Amino acid sequence: MSQSTDHFADRLITASGKKGAPVCVGLDPVIERMPSEIQGDPTERIESWCLGVLEAVTEHAPAVKPQLACFERYGSQGYAVYERVVTAAKAMDLLVIADGKRGDIGLSSAHYAAGLLAGGNAADALTVNAYLGADGLEPFTDAAESAGAGLFALVRTSNPGGDALQGLPLADGRSVNQAVGQIVADLGASKPGYIGESGYSLLGAVVGATKPQDAVALRELMPQQLFLVPGFGAQGGGADDVKACFKPDRTGAVITASRSVIYAHEKSSSSDWRTAISHAAAEFNRQIRSILDG
Amino acid sequence: MSQSTDHFADRLITASGKKGAPVCVGLDPVIERMPSEIQGDPTERIESWCLGVLEAVTEHAPAVKPQLACFERYGSQGYAVYERVVTAAKAMDLLVIADGKRGDIGLSSAHYAAGLLAGGNAADALTVNAYLGADGLEPFTDAAESAGAGLFALVRTSNPGGDALQGLPLADGRSVNQAVGQIVADLGASKPGYIGESGYSLLGAVVGATKPQDAVALRELMPQQLFLVPGFGAQGGGADDVKACFKPDRTGAVITASRSVIYAHEKSSSSDWRTAISHAAAEFNRQIRSILDG
Repeated sequence: MSQSTDHFADRLITASGKKGAPVCVGLDPVIERMPSEIQGDPTERIESWCLGVLEAVTEHAPAVKPQLACFERYGSQGYAVYERVVTAAKAMDLLVIADGKRGDIGLSSAHYAAGLLAGGNAADALTVNAYLGADGLEPFTDAAESAGAGLFALVRTSNPGGDALQGLPLADGRSVNQAVGQIVADLGASKPGYIGESGYSLLGAVVGATKPQDAVALRELMPQQLFLVPGFGAQGGGADDVKACFKPDRTGAVITASRSVIYAHEKSSSSDWRTAISHAAAEFNRQIRSILDG
Repeated sequence: MSQSTDHFADRLITASGKKGAPVCVGLDPVIERMPSEIQGDPTERIESWCLGVLEAVTEHAPAVKPQLACFERYGSQGYAVYERVVTAAKAMDLLVIADGKRGDIGLSSAHYAAGLLAGGNAADALTVNAYLGADGLEPFTDAAESAGAGLFALVRTSNPGGDALQGLPLADGRSVNQAVGQIVADLGASKPGYIGESGYSLLGAVVGATKPQDAVALRELMPQQLFLVPGFGAQGGGADDVKACFKPDRTGAVITASRSVIYAHEKSSSSDWRTAISHAAAEFNRQIRSILDG
């Protein structure tokens, strides 16, 4: 399957309109939490379960976010399952945001980008880590431009431990996460081809919904970045927290949920796990739409 | 092949003594730079070349550092080559430091650790990214303790762009890299099982040889961390820069070189590429030994 070369931000915004809300379902396959009826060896179970989740959510979500760690847990066999899941998702009209949090320099960054964002099993976007600075990110942004792909750099993560570094105040009055945000904003606008028709860059940012004050400041600092927003629901992020990640025109963010959707069978009265997931995905879509309408 | 459960730091120090110097050869397979006599499809060429490099360097280096990006460039097939190269390296009495720069939180970090540091193709150590904080690293350190494996967290990288974030001054007078170093030092000493008989933690740090002033401060700040030091030679790090990464007792660091060793055939008069690499590895070993003796 060949990748569209339209700009990723434009594709995500169009797909979000079509599906009703800018939501993304995290695909974190954990054997221990899968329905007991899914049998086979670990990689067979992961593959069956992922394909079932894709079918259950595609009506309600423009994008899915496979967590690469859960596939790499099973080595090259797991990696092969990841590749087949990406291909299946794209065939089901889902955008794929590979959650690999990769980050390196020079040729190594270029190799990650070539492996994950180009070729037959290419994802539509990849999460990346900015600790190595702009020269570590630029091979990713150049590859993404060629492929019509996107990137989301970690700026402010939703976990409690993120504060210890990301929340530190700098001597110049900014915080560490704002310094990273500035690097991302500058690089993301550094070449004309990086910006889509929507005005958003192919280089977006991960900004957790559990840090609303930081999100407000980052939304100002990064007007051309799409935010990929974890932390809604299960991790404690609420409606106001999510709203801070959007612009007044209701664009600028895609909200992710994982466990509350993909393991919905654990708390559901539905006899079929796929039905439980589908209902949870529909409810997630409705919640975000309602926040944007409210 | 089962992993030794001896502490990684102890194993690395013992192996460095046996091979004469604490050096590590980076295994960054790039098709375009391989000797023309290596034929086949890309993954076949990578595998042949890697096995040849391992044979050429094992007499002179206690450790090799495969760059995961170069293998993931070729998807699950490339990942399978990586697994076979790890197994081959361990059989040749080489420690394997997987250069994956992984970093996530909770169960995702645990999954990366389970995939890369446990099981049949386990590396002896893994590079990790600390931007998500201690709760992102702890699943790695716990898994490493169980496996007798090690970790090296990125603290101060050798690339020019690293300065833009890692070199920033904080309001409290430290730099960003020192704040990361403190997180690493604290976590690395937080459980008795993390510290080996040598006094070093299973959680080490990546500290580039191109930032000698930072290295001096970090050496003070992190007395229990082994430093994995890139940047010697090709990137401009010299003898004094390397020396700053060691303690007065000549322990505390392992120096890495990649291109200057593994692509030595490009500048060599030797007719065999493996001979050229072997000579370059011997010379690298001699240089570091001479710096430590000087």
